Amino acid sequence: MKILGIDPGSARMGWGLIEKDGSKLAAVEYGCLETSKDDSTADRLARLAVELEELVARLAPEVAAVESLFFAKNQTTAMRVSEARGVVLATLSRAGLEVHEYTPLQVKQSLTGYGRAEKKQVELMVCQALAITEKIRPDDAADALAVAVTHSARERLERLSRVAR
Amino acid sequence: MKILGIDPGSARMGWGLIEKDGSKLAAVEYGCLETSKDDSTADRLARLAVELEELVARLAPEVAAVESLFFAKNQTTAMRVSEARGVVLATLSRAGLEVHEYTPLQVKQSLTGYGRAEKKQVELMVCQALAITEKIRPDDAADALAVAVTHSARERLERLSRVAR
Repeated sequence: MKILGIDPGSARMGWGLIEKDGSKLAAVEYGCLETSKDDSTADRLARLAVELEELVARLAPEVAAVESLFFAKNQTTAMRVSEARGVVLATLSRAGLEVHEYTPLQVKQSLTGYGRAEKKQVELMVCQALAITEKIRPDDAADALAVAVTHSARERLERLSRVAR
Repeated sequence: MKILGIDPGSARMGWGLIEKDGSKLAAVEYGCLETSKDDSTADRLARLAVELEELVARLAPEVAAVESLFFAKNQTTAMRVSEARGVVLATLSRAGLEVHEYTPLQVKQSLTGYGRAEKKQVELMVCQALAITEKIRPDDAADALAVAVTHSARERLERLSRVAR
């Protein structure tokens, strides 16, 4: 199963595709979509929608996992990120994908077992889970892979608990 | 010139089309797009994108004016509304429209000359500007018409100040 993870942002949107084969996980491809500060908000969001559509068509994932914002100190930032997330969710749903949302807390807990884990710890666990030996660049792509790995773990747990019932 | 005003929301999105002929304004059509609470966030946003695309294709506006959120007490609400606004901005820009954003404060000031005007006062001025004699329903449509009227006034002011220079 191919899982596309997305870490939404208006300036930079991280993405990462992982492949799950039984209990084996592997990173297929990852990267970051960027929009220009010189463009208007509307044009940047439109650009994001177009590029994400192209990405989904090319990568053909079966399911998508998107990081949701739990809380932000800066409300303006929170609103701009939410605008980008809205575009991401709508685009993925229109492409016919099943879309799951995970909070940063859920990602940290799932990967490290600890909701207040440091960013570095989370990255380390992502590299371990996906057998990636180099530093994942940029950070946005690492965050996107983290949410994809979170989905694969959650989905496995749910399946196991269904079997046990 | 046809101006499409939008008051974004995830559950209800108000819209209103006005026509400007010289200094004369008239309401062409207005209404509200609604999404179902039973659907997931992603599916609701996708529905909104599809319906807004159809609306723009049918109404063929030349410019769009979107209400932006200035500040919200409830952060979860602010984030949900921002997600819907992101979808609206991206959809309008992809349809080739010039997109303008106005805060509630700008709308109130433009229509009533007073930034803390009551909702009723704003509605009254919208009805007056557009020669609407009945109560505009729903409220979301009245808000959408208000932001369209705001754009027409702002645009006129800008044009006049360019002439005076």
